Amino acid sequence: MIQVIKGNFIFTKEKESFEVCENSFMVVDNGVIVSLSKNLSEQYDRVTIEDFGDRLIIPGFVDLHLHASQWPNRGVGYDEELLPWLNKYTFPLEATFKNLEIADQHYSSFIQNLINVGTTRACIFATRHLEATRLLISKLKDSGIGAFVGKVNMDRNADESLVENTKDSINETLDLINEDLSNPDPLVHYMLTPRFVPSVTPELMTELGKMAEKYDLPIQSHLDENLDEIAWVNRLHPTIPSFAQVYEHFHLLRSYKTIMAHCIHMTDEEIRLLKDRHIYIAHCVASNSNLSSGIMPLRKYLDNDMLIGLGSDIAGGHTLDMRENMVLTIQASKLYYTTHHEYKPISLSEAFYLATKGGGSFFGKVGSFEKGYEFDALVIEDNPSDESVIRRLERFIYTGTPENIVRRYVRGKRMEKQ
Amino acid sequence: MIQVIKGNFIFTKEKESFEVCENSFMVVDNGVIVSLSKNLSEQYDRVTIEDFGDRLIIPGFVDLHLHASQWPNRGVGYDEELLPWLNKYTFPLEATFKNLEIADQHYSSFIQNLINVGTTRACIFATRHLEATRLLISKLKDSGIGAFVGKVNMDRNADESLVENTKDSINETLDLINEDLSNPDPLVHYMLTPRFVPSVTPELMTELGKMAEKYDLPIQSHLDENLDEIAWVNRLHPTIPSFAQVYEHFHLLRSYKTIMAHCIHMTDEEIRLLKDRHIYIAHCVASNSNLSSGIMPLRKYLDNDMLIGLGSDIAGGHTLDMRENMVLTIQASKLYYTTHHEYKPISLSEAFYLATKGGGSFFGKVGSFEKGYEFDALVIEDNPSDESVIRRLERFIYTGTPENIVRRYVRGKRMEKQ
Repeated sequence: MIQVIKGNFIFTKEKESFEVCENSFMVVDNGVIVSLSKNLSEQYDRVTIEDFGDRLIIPGFVDLHLHASQWPNRGVGYDEELLPWLNKYTFPLEATFKNLEIADQHYSSFIQNLINVGTTRACIFATRHLEATRLLISKLKDSGIGAFVGKVNMDRNADESLVENTKDSINETLDLINEDLSNPDPLVHYMLTPRFVPSVTPELMTELGKMAEKYDLPIQSHLDENLDEIAWVNRLHPTIPSFAQVYEHFHLLRSYKTIMAHCIHMTDEEIRLLKDRHIYIAHCVASNSNLSSGIMPLRKYLDNDMLIGLGSDIAGGHTLDMRENMVLTIQASKLYYTTHHEYKPISLSEAFYLATKGGGSFFGKVGSFEKGYEFDALVIEDNPSDESVIRRLERFIYTGTPENIVRRYVRGKRMEKQ
Repeated sequence: MIQVIKGNFIFTKEKESFEVCENSFMVVDNGVIVSLSKNLSEQYDRVTIEDFGDRLIIPGFVDLHLHASQWPNRGVGYDEELLPWLNKYTFPLEATFKNLEIADQHYSSFIQNLINVGTTRACIFATRHLEATRLLISKLKDSGIGAFVGKVNMDRNADESLVENTKDSINETLDLINEDLSNPDPLVHYMLTPRFVPSVTPELMTELGKMAEKYDLPIQSHLDENLDEIAWVNRLHPTIPSFAQVYEHFHLLRSYKTIMAHCIHMTDEEIRLLKDRHIYIAHCVASNSNLSSGIMPLRKYLDNDMLIGLGSDIAGGHTLDMRENMVLTIQASKLYYTTHHEYKPISLSEAFYLATKGGGSFFGKVGSFEKGYEFDALVIEDNPSDESVIRRLERFIYTGTPENIVRRYVRGKRMEKQ
């Protein structure tokens, strides 16, 4: 199916600057971008043009790290740091997802809001519960959003209401993998989701590493978020030299297929390891501020050509809106710069790149409007003025709301608000 | 006039903790709080109760520093630091306020939005234009909001489209002071507003210091925001040992009557001076991040019992909403803590105190629900649940919107959205 879309297109082919195509025509064939130009070739004369007039059209937002089950807890308990916050707020909430009715209610609200804020692709942690995870996967498939999603694996160091039996964790994970393989969805895929090193026994990590290789699966987890967490990992694995090396040891660092959230306190050796292995970093700035974790040295990683996207990290982060996460990313980089003058602040185009093409590349050709990219897009309605398109985008990012988003596409298909 | 209001009241008498009075009755007499208790005295039997049921009732928000004229520029130009940002974006916009139609349009939008976000008191910079400032004062009087507002004084170091003649600046300021004195308003008052040291000649600062004393006027300005700015002040006044001492030298530091915005890079001597003089500090966290100015050591100043409130600093700040400014204040304090372990993060109740009673004290007995305080309040409607009132407030602060505010009072009088 051919689509022709007209409007003011903005995107970041490179992170250093915006590409602007005003009053242009985009041709999309079966969800994939064929061309973007000022004039429309005659061969498309018979195609009805979706004309968005003076509105802005930007790539959909990509959220590289979040916990769907923690949606009800956004904005709660931020006077604590990571480990007490997990025990006091997060784990008790996640334990309630044993009840499918509760899970259904929270996951419905979560997906509605994810669509509302303009996220078109996301990497999502469920909970450790098989049935509730199945439900989340099913609801995501219905939503039209693109997602990687996984049942959390956690068989140590949690309350008995939440901790798993190792064998059950393995079997339930295999069940979900097989369901995904036997009934593949075009947009929603399974992702191995070991919570973080302190929550997963060596036995389970070993098995997950084997599954990853056997089924060629993507993996998501957490790394170097908090100093107490890192000290704990060192106590749990005293013979392995670093937190990142623990994942490496269990074959969980897969090239272009693993996402590690946070990565604030990495040693030079860990940075080298993640860079060599082509591991994605999910920068979760709101969470890192809320839980007093610190500022990730984003500029340092960008200068090092690492793979990076943004994550809302609901509910360590309080906002699902990638607009707000871009603003917080820029602000944190500026505050970091005031004490580290060698690392200049993140610019608007760089933040936009991270929230679109940077994270989008984990999904393939996603997050840009170049030829061959999947057409994930948001149509933005603002108060038209005589300002430049880039200035209007800047305003939307800093002061917009989800109400400014009047149309959403994922791989060419319109996604409806629920 | 007696009013009786019923609901769940929350406020901060001390900054360390919330006071919660659930299902309680507040009696207000001519705008001033008489009592807040579980039971209503029989003497009020005939007064109609405004019953807000399960809703939350909190003090109105106080914004201690903002530029009304810069409202159209929120979210614009943050890839620059302070001085280039002023010249490139702020001064050209302010110059357009010579045109009263433009001023009218922007000031109307500004006041609508100020009411919308729940700010009930504010200290406001206009521009250097007499007529436009008169218009802003008049519109603020009509709005029902409580405000201090001033024409900006600036007779050096700006483009000729904006810089003033010294004599005109003096005369126009005297005109506005006299208009205020001859036709006093219960809620809106004039405030001397020298832009900042680099914008005001010694001659004009001298005259403003004299006016301040003669008419016992409050004063607002900027201090120690940016390192280039501080170096410039030192070059302009090489014989005066610090930026703060320049204001002191010209008698512009008036006890309990002067507000200095930013105060990020103060020397110990400047901290002592502001503390001794009982000068208010307006902490403008969003602006300080957006313009790469740095993190103000808020905990240090709180430990030193200084007078502090929050300022949105539109348009260095991108959001007028004090909810968001509270969140950013807490986040910045946590990031500061990760590199300065001696200064613990700002808690939720402390941020709330700063946005209500802390800034409110500049206006008198404002910002709390203690007996004798003026009844400035917001009624908050959320999704009632079985959570505690404090938890509900925390959610509103982190994830609410202006739509959650269903009623606004200033000194007992209902303020309507425009």
